[in-house]
Amino acid sequence: MAYLNDNYSKLKTGYLFPEIARRVKTFCEANPEAAKKLIRCGIGDVTEPLPAAIVEAFHKGVDEMADRATFRGYGPEQGYEFLRSAIAKNDFRDHGLDVADDEVFVSDGAKCDTANILDIFGPNNKIAVTDPVYPVYVDTNVMVGHTGQANDAGEFDGLVYLACTEANGFVADLPKEKVDIIYLCFPNNPTGAVATKARLQEWVDYALKNESILFFDAAYESFISDPEIPHSIYEIPGARECAIEFRSFSKNAGFTGTRCAYTVVPKTVMARNAAGEKKQLHPLWARRSSTKFNGVSYPIQRAAEAVYSDAGKEQIRGLINHYMENAKILCEAVSSAGLKVFGGVNAPYIWVQAPKGMTSWQMFDRILGEASIVITPGSGFGSKGEGYFRISAFNSRSNAVEAAKRLKELNW
Amino acid sequence: MAYLNDNYSKLKTGYLFPEIARRVKTFCEANPEAAKKLIRCGIGDVTEPLPAAIVEAFHKGVDEMADRATFRGYGPEQGYEFLRSAIAKNDFRDHGLDVADDEVFVSDGAKCDTANILDIFGPNNKIAVTDPVYPVYVDTNVMVGHTGQANDAGEFDGLVYLACTEANGFVADLPKEKVDIIYLCFPNNPTGAVATKARLQEWVDYALKNESILFFDAAYESFISDPEIPHSIYEIPGARECAIEFRSFSKNAGFTGTRCAYTVVPKTVMARNAAGEKKQLHPLWARRSSTKFNGVSYPIQRAAEAVYSDAGKEQIRGLINHYMENAKILCEAVSSAGLKVFGGVNAPYIWVQAPKGMTSWQMFDRILGEASIVITPGSGFGSKGEGYFRISAFNSRSNAVEAAKRLKELNW
Repeated sequence: MAYLNDNYSKLKTGYLFPEIARRVKTFCEANPEAAKKLIRCGIGDVTEPLPAAIVEAFHKGVDEMADRATFRGYGPEQGYEFLRSAIAKNDFRDHGLDVADDEVFVSDGAKCDTANILDIFGPNNKIAVTDPVYPVYVDTNVMVGHTGQANDAGEFDGLVYLACTEANGFVADLPKEKVDIIYLCFPNNPTGAVATKARLQEWVDYALKNESILFFDAAYESFISDPEIPHSIYEIPGARECAIEFRSFSKNAGFTGTRCAYTVVPKTVMARNAAGEKKQLHPLWARRSSTKFNGVSYPIQRAAEAVYSDAGKEQIRGLINHYMENAKILCEAVSSAGLKVFGGVNAPYIWVQAPKGMTSWQMFDRILGEASIVITPGSGFGSKGEGYFRISAFNSRSNAVEAAKRLKELNW
Repeated sequence: MAYLNDNYSKLKTGYLFPEIARRVKTFCEANPEAAKKLIRCGIGDVTEPLPAAIVEAFHKGVDEMADRATFRGYGPEQGYEFLRSAIAKNDFRDHGLDVADDEVFVSDGAKCDTANILDIFGPNNKIAVTDPVYPVYVDTNVMVGHTGQANDAGEFDGLVYLACTEANGFVADLPKEKVDIIYLCFPNNPTGAVATKARLQEWVDYALKNESILFFDAAYESFISDPEIPHSIYEIPGARECAIEFRSFSKNAGFTGTRCAYTVVPKTVMARNAAGEKKQLHPLWARRSSTKFNGVSYPIQRAAEAVYSDAGKEQIRGLINHYMENAKILCEAVSSAGLKVFGGVNAPYIWVQAPKGMTSWQMFDRILGEASIVITPGSGFGSKGEGYFRISAFNSRSNAVEAAKRLKELNW
């Protein structure tokens, strides 16, 4: 008799975005006129086309697959050398950061990587997440059995939740207890907060002292405009001994539908085995990808390589500027309406405090009903997100301008 | 203090193909002249370019990503409806098999799917694999802790090994004990064996009686030439209640470097939860992909859709015929040399019995040293593969003809 994984039954039925989709659908069916002018500022999905340099490289990669002389079959599971070296050089070594080509693992998504990374860890680690948090971090821990059941606030027994509030600038304080693995995401989804070098140094020092591992999600690093804010955890001394960094081409190069990302596992990051010996994590992650993955599509790796061409860099800068100008327009609108606004400066997300006494979902329904705008309720990211909502700046300029106008005119 | 997954230490260091690569490298360095005429009949990787209809659709998909009006961001994690329905219709319903569009889950590889499927099962299942076997089935079970250590023959404690021998036509007999999950692969990698309807009916009946689940890997189904041999486990009455089927575009459409595959999880397949209740596996697999995956690249899904166009079907038929003609040429060569040959008729793999007293690796070294041909030692697939070797028919015609000539002339 086959047994299923019972941990799945602990998951809450409604993953955030399906519930949003359900409410939007109901609204649109009941209000066909309003539906026509619906603007989506909910899910963090890019709207602008792939940059020309990337499209050109993508086509060239496809053409190579059409010719016997240049055809590629199975590639290296960890990514082609041309892409691993372009990443390590451009994103790290050119910034004075020590990352070797073979410490870069190319994958089809940072979501997949932040989920799959748990495979190489044992079942006895104490896991800490921030609150609010990207739901995938929590759900993947539930699925592998690292938690008990959830309480009424949606907090799972066995996880350590680190509050991110206005008081700490939405950068979690160090935990009182010892934890073994900590998920950090800067620039943050959903709050748009960034962490200074000093704050990240506290985290690295904590990790070194406690032999913890930091999972550092830097998917939004290219949106940082403040020159003082670190783009990589490896800018922090000691991080190469305790941090794994996740990055993605989704948000900078518009790859949400194209799919390419990467993870950096320094050979200097160690964890204990059952005998108490310190061992590198690098060979485990390499073995995992060799056994459970077959690499990213060759034409897509060529497309990703073009991210680092001169033309690609310039075109991506244009994309980032586009979305960040949207963010500015939207920030000003909600600010001028008298709301308290966070983020939106070094991140494409704006984190807005709901008027006193309003819940996140009440705000969702009101903004949808009165302005035909879809936002994301903060409570969907954790109990500390209650009373907030997230506006995504991923949109066309005309949509951003129109959304700003409606938000300004809304009877808050 | 973070703990790693100790199960990885149970894995044998040399995954088969890296060890082959090492020996080939050593040989080539020592024999630069012989290296020039090396022919690879080892790894089962396609050599012919993507068919024209697929290339055209692939380019069109890329062009859509270059235009704001047709750009696609995040797609459905389980695959676009256009591809799921093309698969369900062409590969199943057109053959009278009952598979709904939403029972098809599009992914980036059958290797990934056969590995990831374990996520939705509990830790207490008794797992059976065939011997010889595709190593990924075994290694992924080791990695999640379903086994103890390996013995000297490489067999892991806790797994049930089902011998596939000349006596049973390389189709495993039913196990004596009750097992919960069984991996079956037909046409088989590595032996090239196929299973008749009657043999598969025995397996389905066993699974229904014991409430077991069959993992049916049909990655090579398009190579079947015998009209009596089933292409899908769903041709067997009762299979919709007990079988999950894995398929791939890798070997038929040449997608090993392009990456697209799919898994069928019928809504009628059930497993027990801890309370002993029967529950569908379909929602668990859907939840897994929503949480840990972000779908296959849009242009690749369009390329895969073209597999089912009239032109695509015809061009793929051409590819299959090409590789199967290679298989025929290679089979004849080793047969005429007096060796005992299996497979190669309904599968692109030829399974050859080594001359008496020779081990698989001895054969590997001799064929490499004397004919400059890389084959795969049968013992790399399990202890029952000892004394055999696998020849892959994935090659150019000229390479296949030349390899056949050398094999015929070899002093066996």
